[in-house]
Amino acid sequence: MSTERALAYAEVHRRRFLDELKEFIRFPSVSAQPRHADDLVNCADWLAEHLRRIGLEEVRIVPTRRHPLVYAHWRGAPARPTVLVYGHYDVQPPDPLREWRSPPFEPTMRGENLFARGACDNKGQMFVHVKALEAYLQTRGALPVNVACLFEGEEEIGSPHLLPFIARNRDALAADVAVMSDTIMPAPDQPAITYATRGALYLELELRGPGHDLHSGNFGGAVLNPLQALCEIIAKLHDAEGRIAIPGLYRRVRRWSRAERARMAHVGASDETILEDALSERGWGERGYSLYERLTLRPALTVNGIAGGYQGPGGKGVIPARALAKLSFRLVADQDPAEIDRLVRAHIARITPPAVRATVRTLASARPALVNPNHPAIRAAAAACGKGFGTAPVLLRSGGTIPVASAFQELLGAPTVLMGFALPDDSMHAPNEKFHLPIFYNGIASAIWFLAAIGAAGELGAERPAAPALAAG
Amino acid sequence: MSTERALAYAEVHRRRFLDELKEFIRFPSVSAQPRHADDLVNCADWLAEHLRRIGLEEVRIVPTRRHPLVYAHWRGAPARPTVLVYGHYDVQPPDPLREWRSPPFEPTMRGENLFARGACDNKGQMFVHVKALEAYLQTRGALPVNVACLFEGEEEIGSPHLLPFIARNRDALAADVAVMSDTIMPAPDQPAITYATRGALYLELELRGPGHDLHSGNFGGAVLNPLQALCEIIAKLHDAEGRIAIPGLYRRVRRWSRAERARMAHVGASDETILEDALSERGWGERGYSLYERLTLRPALTVNGIAGGYQGPGGKGVIPARALAKLSFRLVADQDPAEIDRLVRAHIARITPPAVRATVRTLASARPALVNPNHPAIRAAAAACGKGFGTAPVLLRSGGTIPVASAFQELLGAPTVLMGFALPDDSMHAPNEKFHLPIFYNGIASAIWFLAAIGAAGELGAERPAAPALAAG
Repeated sequence: MSTERALAYAEVHRRRFLDELKEFIRFPSVSAQPRHADDLVNCADWLAEHLRRIGLEEVRIVPTRRHPLVYAHWRGAPARPTVLVYGHYDVQPPDPLREWRSPPFEPTMRGENLFARGACDNKGQMFVHVKALEAYLQTRGALPVNVACLFEGEEEIGSPHLLPFIARNRDALAADVAVMSDTIMPAPDQPAITYATRGALYLELELRGPGHDLHSGNFGGAVLNPLQALCEIIAKLHDAEGRIAIPGLYRRVRRWSRAERARMAHVGASDETILEDALSERGWGERGYSLYERLTLRPALTVNGIAGGYQGPGGKGVIPARALAKLSFRLVADQDPAEIDRLVRAHIARITPPAVRATVRTLASARPALVNPNHPAIRAAAAACGKGFGTAPVLLRSGGTIPVASAFQELLGAPTVLMGFALPDDSMHAPNEKFHLPIFYNGIASAIWFLAAIGAAGELGAERPAAPALAAG
Repeated sequence: MSTERALAYAEVHRRRFLDELKEFIRFPSVSAQPRHADDLVNCADWLAEHLRRIGLEEVRIVPTRRHPLVYAHWRGAPARPTVLVYGHYDVQPPDPLREWRSPPFEPTMRGENLFARGACDNKGQMFVHVKALEAYLQTRGALPVNVACLFEGEEEIGSPHLLPFIARNRDALAADVAVMSDTIMPAPDQPAITYATRGALYLELELRGPGHDLHSGNFGGAVLNPLQALCEIIAKLHDAEGRIAIPGLYRRVRRWSRAERARMAHVGASDETILEDALSERGWGERGYSLYERLTLRPALTVNGIAGGYQGPGGKGVIPARALAKLSFRLVADQDPAEIDRLVRAHIARITPPAVRATVRTLASARPALVNPNHPAIRAAAAACGKGFGTAPVLLRSGGTIPVASAFQELLGAPTVLMGFALPDDSMHAPNEKFHLPIFYNGIASAIWFLAAIGAAGELGAERPAAPALAAG
């Protein structure tokens, strides 16, 4: 009964929910760029105020040395399980700006899609859960479970302060299950639960050669160019078969049974679908694996950016003194980011020519995560999505990284339900990011059903002592 | 007598000459950057007005489709030889700006050096000749030779309109010798005449892969990254021995006698000196050649810039849709830029993986140039520098490119005297470019002596008919 009232409330208030989401999106909360620091603070303030207004208790902004966390809870059902709702209010940089059809921080409707940076990743998807909580709190005045919300502002820069915060607050954050939406569903009418994500290791490689920029006429041919050396090093990071050519990198990569690979082939995206989503004519990568397997079962190395020398219009005859590359690895079970970091550094040291000096900086890292697809929380989520969308969800692996998913498992002992509402062509991290509004509304219904299902799941939840106060960020 | 009066005038007016040079430098005449187009026009206007004031006749600004030429002459000595004075008032982009100790277009004295973009390349060096002309015209009211001045605003972008202009004005520009200063002298007390320069071919290579930027979590490992493909292509442009690995590229490279190489070893910069100037610990390049030979006798390929993906602070998980490299070749006798262009395009087409599309754009090209070191004009220049600096000059080859030097030879039949006043550490094309003022003053004296020596050189010059009017730019 109370679930139906919540569902009805969510239907009636759709237009306001959308307006509020637009407000949320307008904050250019780009965590990687220091000039946006105030925008993150303002966005966190707005979010905290919003959580207070919908009826959550103990809403707190937790400062960190960079961007604040927003915490809130409702603990009025001591006998019921506790759900930890996670999301992030920070967004990727909008570059390259000139490729946006509408300004990245001015949410714009075209058809049934809302276009803006953060529309999907992750403001739209986390708002699904916020609105589900509101629907219960504003109709029933209570939730069917205990809930703690943890919304961070540093996901896109590797969550440097979230994990220490969780570690310091194990008791206060204790939960039976975590839930978040930052993964893919294959199509608007095909929901999905993700049970595996890749880890990540983000590095910056800098090469220095001559002590200052040189005229390429006066020195070209006699001095090693750091940009050329960088290209040669990067070219040596893959072999001709598309495998990463770093010794030891595949040592701990888990092998999967024929049955698991057959199941994946059945539910996963086909090569054709992946290439369509990528607007690419042909695939690439490690031989012997489908594209979906390359994206989920196998590690990957991407050159995310290179900068060096002259980049303006026309030409400039320069040998730059330095060159910089951003490199990111996606890791799979049972790879350990710290070990991979050591292997990469050793390999780069081995292949760097003596005429340049290489510096490797680790910007971020996260472990891969796996949840047992038969866990009762996953089964509850599958049932909820089935009701919210009218179709049973597929169980998927993701190629992306959810740094907190493994942290919740390791630090809190809670499995994480990844209830994804992003379409493959939503252009997360790219220009013209969008969020499909029918998914927003069906997602809210699914999240409402999920809270109900967890509240009713006998296998989950034991009475907990009152949660202690939070430690500082 | 008149030469001594001119020399005395130049000594007395040093401070004003310096003030005028600073005025000239303050125009940010960056020819490669469209937003500076007006600055080039203003700089050309200033220069033309200056040439009028010092006593030249027929001063004209010749518009082109991009940046104007400035022409002036004095033809009051019909029985004497004609000297074509060439220089360029455009400058390289000042990037990277943050590495400048003082603003690039605010000329700043530190010690005996004037720091600014263009201080040396080429405003300071061309001003040497302007002031030598002034010294004669303002003391004697005449020059010892006929002079035509040709100052362009497009040297740093490959002189797209100068050569056609020269070709259309062969008769008006007819000269017995061309002189310019845009080359190196080894030390403040060691003048130099350069008799060989390398040619150039400047290309832009663009790779396109996916139709839009992709999230490297969702697509990393299954789609070829254009940045990675770019690195792999660039890595294949050199072999492990430091040679350019483009088939046919060395086919026409002239072989030099043991005697010439021994002479070069005697007068040319040592490996140690070149590395000191480059602030580099060790050399690099083609085996079997000294660094000086690699810079002058042998072709070179430099990656001048790479742009692609995310370049800001922190990280961004992106696979960019495109990647761009700027590549420049330095060519030697008897390589032909058009043939090299064809060879490069064919090689890149061969080595580009099928999952990306390559586009090659030719931005600029110039032939290598050679002058016989025994030509009477070179001998006159050597004598003049000997007097101006108190030391006989060395005869050098340069690794740089003077696109007009071969054009003067081919189109006007005039050898070009390259009387260089740039020190190897003057950071031409780099931050903190400088010009050493004692060289400015000794250079003016040398240029005065040079005009006198050419005027007295019986082997040069026959009476010419009155020069016809100039054609349009």
